[in-house]
Amino acid sequence: MADITASQASKKPLVFHHLEDSRSQRILWLLEELKVPYELKEYKRIGGRAPKELTAVHPLGKSPVITDNGKTIAESGAIVDYIIKKYDTNKTFAPQTEDEELQYNYWLHFAEGTTMTPLVLLLIFDTASKTVPFFVRPLVNGIFGAINKQYTFPECKKNFGFIEQTLQKQAFFAGDRITAADIQMSFPMEICDRAGVHEQAYPAIYAWRKKMGARPAYQAALQKTSLAYAYKL
Amino acid sequence: MADITASQASKKPLVFHHLEDSRSQRILWLLEELKVPYELKEYKRIGGRAPKELTAVHPLGKSPVITDNGKTIAESGAIVDYIIKKYDTNKTFAPQTEDEELQYNYWLHFAEGTTMTPLVLLLIFDTASKTVPFFVRPLVNGIFGAINKQYTFPECKKNFGFIEQTLQKQAFFAGDRITAADIQMSFPMEICDRAGVHEQAYPAIYAWRKKMGARPAYQAALQKTSLAYAYKL
Repeated sequence: MADITASQASKKPLVFHHLEDSRSQRILWLLEELKVPYELKEYKRIGGRAPKELTAVHPLGKSPVITDNGKTIAESGAIVDYIIKKYDTNKTFAPQTEDEELQYNYWLHFAEGTTMTPLVLLLIFDTASKTVPFFVRPLVNGIFGAINKQYTFPECKKNFGFIEQTLQKQAFFAGDRITAADIQMSFPMEICDRAGVHEQAYPAIYAWRKKMGARPAYQAALQKTSLAYAYKL
Repeated sequence: MADITASQASKKPLVFHHLEDSRSQRILWLLEELKVPYELKEYKRIGGRAPKELTAVHPLGKSPVITDNGKTIAESGAIVDYIIKKYDTNKTFAPQTEDEELQYNYWLHFAEGTTMTPLVLLLIFDTASKTVPFFVRPLVNGIFGAINKQYTFPECKKNFGFIEQTLQKQAFFAGDRITAADIQMSFPMEICDRAGVHEQAYPAIYAWRKKMGARPAYQAALQKTSLAYAYKL
């Protein structure tokens, strides 16, 4: 017993570095779903950007990032993968069948690899438009509008159309039960309104959002941080 | 024996759908490295875009995409993961240790999740700049230049600075031996010149590029396709 107590005392919990208004909120939610013990470190944005302190955690100075068992792990898809493999030994949020695993991996990569690119572009144009002098703003907005018409909106429409089709066929991203792929996909699903995704045209997306937002662990994650939550389901 | 022959005869090889000038070239290379039998289907771009035929393979109509054993698998990181798990049973390109696996997963997600976003932005600005009437081009380039100065170039500098540091410490992305993470990272590494990455400032990146480009399987992949290769290592 003495040994077990010593070992427990020396074992440090996972540290989760949470940046306000950011993609890191889904890791907080995943930790809550799995009831993983963690220490929460919160970071406020300065002038819209991540504070310099985060570069002491990881050279890229971004969040989400976790430190666990002497290792620093960044990149949301890789963090989800790590947490699931290490802490979800009962496979409650991990894929259970070969088919689930294929779909799970697809969406784990798709979230950041495909959906976020046009969504980040929309955000950059929005920010840039607000910072130019007012007298060139119509022209600048015309240029951004042309890129959005040619690239950003059609890409978003294609991506969210495909997501809608998927969620009309099955209740969750990897099949008929919730997995961590749903949590990884939550960030683009939270911000897709700005890309012209509306409830009338995308009913399955909105039904999924309502269902996910009502989960006790999602609500608990909201309560755990004192910082602004970027978007809410 | 009869059963084995029958089973072999009915077993269709993996089909690899390759779009010219695209990120799919790394999957071709990975298949060559692992000597996986595959059927190559080639697709030419029409007006710079993927042809409609690809939507018959996968609703998003993009490449890379593979069909294997009745399944269609898209998203480059997920394809790499699938091929490695199914066909690299000797773990020649798979991670072998826990530490390698952590690094491998990180770069598998980082390639599309982090490096490609600012690189795609550069490509979009470049394309947009060429399509506007010449008399507004200086103004348009001024706006794009401001976004590049504020966001795109600093992001690329941060990302490739971190990659340079990594490759100065170790020979490959996941450690001291090559893994599929190197192949997944090859696309941003091939196009990073356009983001201001030069040999003098990033010697480890250039040394890695030369080493990877000289691999027989990389050269074999180049020979296998009749289509333009986007970039060469």
